[in-house]
Amino acid sequence: MDIAALRDKHPEHWRKAAAIRTLTLDAVAAANSGHSGMPMGMADVATVLFDKHMKFDPKAPTWADRDRFILSVGHGSMLLYSVLHLTGYEEVPLEEIKNFRQWGSKTAGHPESEYLDAVETTTGPLGQGIANSVGFAIAEEMLRAKYGPKIVDHYTWVMAGDGCLMEGVSQEAIALAGMQKLSKLVVFFDDNGITIDGKVSLADVTDQAKRFEASGWHVQSIDGHDPDAIDAAIEAAKADPRPSMIACKTHIALGSSAQDTAKGHGALTDGQLIADTKAAYGWEHGPFEIPQDVKAQWEAMGARGARAHEEWRERFDALSERKRIEFERAFAGEAPKALSTKIRAFKKEALENAKPVASRKSSEMVLNVVNGVMTETVGGSADLTGSNNTRSGDMEVFSPDNRSGRYIHYGIREHGMAAAMNGIALHGGLRPYGGTFMAFTDYARGAMRLSALMHQPVVYVMTHDSIGLGEDGPTHQPVEHLSMLRATPNTYVFRPADTVETAEAWEIALTTTDRPSVLALSRQNLAPVRSEHKTKNLVEQGAYVLREAGEKRRAILMASGSEVEIAVAARDILEAEGIGVRVVSVPCMELFAAQDEAYRKRVLPAGPVRVAVEAGVRQSWDRLLLGERGREQKAGFVGMEGFGASAPAPTLYEKFGITAEAVAEKVRALL
Amino acid sequence: MDIAALRDKHPEHWRKAAAIRTLTLDAVAAANSGHSGMPMGMADVATVLFDKHMKFDPKAPTWADRDRFILSVGHGSMLLYSVLHLTGYEEVPLEEIKNFRQWGSKTAGHPESEYLDAVETTTGPLGQGIANSVGFAIAEEMLRAKYGPKIVDHYTWVMAGDGCLMEGVSQEAIALAGMQKLSKLVVFFDDNGITIDGKVSLADVTDQAKRFEASGWHVQSIDGHDPDAIDAAIEAAKADPRPSMIACKTHIALGSSAQDTAKGHGALTDGQLIADTKAAYGWEHGPFEIPQDVKAQWEAMGARGARAHEEWRERFDALSERKRIEFERAFAGEAPKALSTKIRAFKKEALENAKPVASRKSSEMVLNVVNGVMTETVGGSADLTGSNNTRSGDMEVFSPDNRSGRYIHYGIREHGMAAAMNGIALHGGLRPYGGTFMAFTDYARGAMRLSALMHQPVVYVMTHDSIGLGEDGPTHQPVEHLSMLRATPNTYVFRPADTVETAEAWEIALTTTDRPSVLALSRQNLAPVRSEHKTKNLVEQGAYVLREAGEKRRAILMASGSEVEIAVAARDILEAEGIGVRVVSVPCMELFAAQDEAYRKRVLPAGPVRVAVEAGVRQSWDRLLLGERGREQKAGFVGMEGFGASAPAPTLYEKFGITAEAVAEKVRALL
Repeated sequence: MDIAALRDKHPEHWRKAAAIRTLTLDAVAAANSGHSGMPMGMADVATVLFDKHMKFDPKAPTWADRDRFILSVGHGSMLLYSVLHLTGYEEVPLEEIKNFRQWGSKTAGHPESEYLDAVETTTGPLGQGIANSVGFAIAEEMLRAKYGPKIVDHYTWVMAGDGCLMEGVSQEAIALAGMQKLSKLVVFFDDNGITIDGKVSLADVTDQAKRFEASGWHVQSIDGHDPDAIDAAIEAAKADPRPSMIACKTHIALGSSAQDTAKGHGALTDGQLIADTKAAYGWEHGPFEIPQDVKAQWEAMGARGARAHEEWRERFDALSERKRIEFERAFAGEAPKALSTKIRAFKKEALENAKPVASRKSSEMVLNVVNGVMTETVGGSADLTGSNNTRSGDMEVFSPDNRSGRYIHYGIREHGMAAAMNGIALHGGLRPYGGTFMAFTDYARGAMRLSALMHQPVVYVMTHDSIGLGEDGPTHQPVEHLSMLRATPNTYVFRPADTVETAEAWEIALTTTDRPSVLALSRQNLAPVRSEHKTKNLVEQGAYVLREAGEKRRAILMASGSEVEIAVAARDILEAEGIGVRVVSVPCMELFAAQDEAYRKRVLPAGPVRVAVEAGVRQSWDRLLLGERGREQKAGFVGMEGFGASAPAPTLYEKFGITAEAVAEKVRALL
Repeated sequence: MDIAALRDKHPEHWRKAAAIRTLTLDAVAAANSGHSGMPMGMADVATVLFDKHMKFDPKAPTWADRDRFILSVGHGSMLLYSVLHLTGYEEVPLEEIKNFRQWGSKTAGHPESEYLDAVETTTGPLGQGIANSVGFAIAEEMLRAKYGPKIVDHYTWVMAGDGCLMEGVSQEAIALAGMQKLSKLVVFFDDNGITIDGKVSLADVTDQAKRFEASGWHVQSIDGHDPDAIDAAIEAAKADPRPSMIACKTHIALGSSAQDTAKGHGALTDGQLIADTKAAYGWEHGPFEIPQDVKAQWEAMGARGARAHEEWRERFDALSERKRIEFERAFAGEAPKALSTKIRAFKKEALENAKPVASRKSSEMVLNVVNGVMTETVGGSADLTGSNNTRSGDMEVFSPDNRSGRYIHYGIREHGMAAAMNGIALHGGLRPYGGTFMAFTDYARGAMRLSALMHQPVVYVMTHDSIGLGEDGPTHQPVEHLSMLRATPNTYVFRPADTVETAEAWEIALTTTDRPSVLALSRQNLAPVRSEHKTKNLVEQGAYVLREAGEKRRAILMASGSEVEIAVAARDILEAEGIGVRVVSVPCMELFAAQDEAYRKRVLPAGPVRVAVEAGVRQSWDRLLLGERGREQKAGFVGMEGFGASAPAPTLYEKFGITAEAVAEKVRALL
């Protein structure tokens, strides 16, 4: 690579881009870890994008109408941190750059959205960023339709690498974006031909341009080090009505002795290599030193954005008060006040008309209420609309022809759906929920974990939540999934027992702002277990006494969801035998764990035998069964020990021994 | 659709295909559940394939050189069951067809490989079959190179639907197959334009032909109801040196009133609809009735295969005895006798040269031994070869130019890798292992669960198994994953503490035949904890006493992997204070649970305080901490309660409080 020629041809551009490159070299060297190659390769694209196109205001990183910049190739975090520092984001002073990858710094190894406002989404697990970006672009289209282009009109820019494009989730994202004609989504593909194992050709021969075109994208291929070509390609991308992919031929670790090699992907920390590279760049400044003229040019980009922000603010202030309040409430993630009233009324009515109903169906009944009062909800399903019951009666379908639609047919793409929902939530102004079969959380895990890590209140509507789904068999029957989800930090796992609990779970999920919720819902009908109307949301306590012992209390049965009615029936058997049994409904273990100790002890006093019932593996119940510190009471479990089978649901419950009689027998044996 | 014209044009073919269609209608009606549409749509393709091309012997479903038929679109299981019954597989008598989807029947809702020999792989979760098929085709290439084309020379045929192709894992599979030029892989795409939610166009506009071509596939588009076109396309696919995709335009639920609709995807059980459809087919036979001439024609297909099998057997018998024995041993999944001897010698040597080493590196040292004696191992990594340490010194890379290579660069495709490994294992004759970072089990879960469900001894080499990986931060730091994996039935989760335990874990993983193993390995160096050479494999017991209490035993510390040395150090602190502490190493909870009660009580006697240490969440430890039935002893846990952070590993252990002193303090507090 003739670096001198690059420098000479565009000297001003070169120095701006070199600032990214040298900050990267210096930060990685200081941390003695990180990834140098990608920022060095993509610095030219980033420079042109921020210089000429990106709409952003460093003084207001959360301005609603900013362009979103998604670094899908998250290991290249120093590119983002460099740009944020250079353009003047107060949250990224030079000190943060110097503390790259250290305890307590905001400049984590990969960009973490919870540490920096300007990090739109947490990336690192490859493919997530590009899949999030589809959600961002969908949100922009929806909100533009809702508030008008004077208020919402921005681009979503993505940098993705070979790794992102090899991950399957990228295909789900690309296909969805192409179908939805998300014209304001632009992906820069860092086409450097190198992965960790060596050349891309070791594992891939895909013609990426052709692949994107196959899903309806506008595609260009350019020299990623030529600022004029980059600028022209961005202009063309903006002009085209399709989502755009710009394949940028770049040299990883440009200008260093590790250029175009797998070594260049990682941490370049050798002093001589760094010195030689800086010399090749014509960069005569000390470590972390940015000359004033270069810094000023970067800051001017931010100043341009600040003016755009001011103009936007004027337009926003001209909106009706109602619109402004609605906009700000939705962006703050606050549910409308009417929600709780409506849910309460629904609960009352549900009790009055109590009848056996599948909790997935109860969920639909709740959504029919919710979607009427919360105009910011965005529903969807991974091609199981009629099974997940996710589309309420009034929801129109979002499509290129109807940007006002609030329901998304995500296709058979659980992972892409979850990642897109993260993007919609991160964008702000909307509240996404989406459904699939609970067993297929396996497909969506990669993005569901990120909902939790990023504190995004995405709602996962996971129906067919046990062997109770019957004939579809073990591939479709979750067994370990409840324990898996409960093991995941910062996630609410709700498994409501009837219509009232389903409504209460939804209310919590929709008023929570700092974590995702999973609703585990039954395919089969569930008998109502709540018999008395309470204004209070009992699910908020996580677990509560559903039936008190009639006789002297000798046992406590705990259960969730479809097994609560089994526990109630077991209680009836035992009480008839003179054995006093309390039944505790446990719709949400995480919320129960968050109650104070006094409440927890009141619900689960030490002493009486405890038996839990759930049509899943035991693991997540052990704590409630055995007590935090042990030495409390005898305990047993009725549930699954292995995978399920294909047969009608009642047969399966019988054959796997999840019955009221089996529970009663377990209690008798322990007494 | 003019059914009469189809019937008239190819009357003999029509009746054979109609047998699949009517058996499907009858079985679904009897079960009152299932999926009628796909078998009715793809019956023509299946008929031509089995009639003219498929190499199979119904009397020997596990014949090593049979063609593999993969029904990726698993909900169309009645297509497969029909063909198996019609061609004369003894394991699928008519009774099984009549018991479709019932308890105890082999004809589960989706094809389950553990129920029927002729089911090559369990499908149902969409995309898995097509991704498995890449593994099958890789195995065929490898074994052909190893044993010659007289012994191994067969096709892998796949039926995939829109759902399979929308799932991201299919992209990973398609790209890998294209790069590897797997010429004996042929995918029939059931291009019927319908999904559960409605028309495919609701969620996808992808030009699938172009997409496959972009990854180097040979592509054809045909009328999927024209037997001549199907036959010609298969011939062309066989002749082409690339993997082939044949897009078959079909009508879902052909000939019924639900044809070409989403309703047709599901269970068609209406009596009138069935009668009308059969009338349109010109099928005048009763339910489950197959006229003798049609049955005879199907059975003749099987007879053709039986002759091919006989000829193959002659060629096989002509092999050298050594080759025959090796072939049969490998297909039986038996490890060579030399393995244990070599592992034992390795353990001895490791103790003699004991030094701190990362367990991922220990794993590589073991593989250097293993891959020398076990020629059936197939290694690989999802683009982290140098980090997972999965490529032993002597391993060549498998590629179109070197089919003798035993190492696969899977690319950045964790899900595709896991699914391909399932295919390799299912094919037989080879033993796959593959690596990625442990946090990315999230990406591979869909296929990992199927390894467990299918009892396939795939080995997952999951390195960077905790916050101990340091600076890459929370996205890369597994926290909940050990509990998640331990919650999964039929899976061994090994977390070895040092080089000796790593060798023992590998030995078990490589001699196990009925389940997958996960090796959770550290990035950071681990101090050796085993001090005395034992011939016996101690990891086989799952947990064992590593250090006995010196003083009177008042506490038991349990730990796995990188935290065992912390437990040992905590013991030293406490013993110095006069508190007797036993340390139990727990490399595999599943194996410990499988020991008899006497052993378990010996290792973990009730009474002494128990504290577990693991740099992950507590959930999976509760049982060991608290006892199966409760009321045993006081207990505590030192580990993670939430996600990790980005910083050097020693800092993270300190900041998250996973230290010997913290463990000692927990014990003191409980005493």
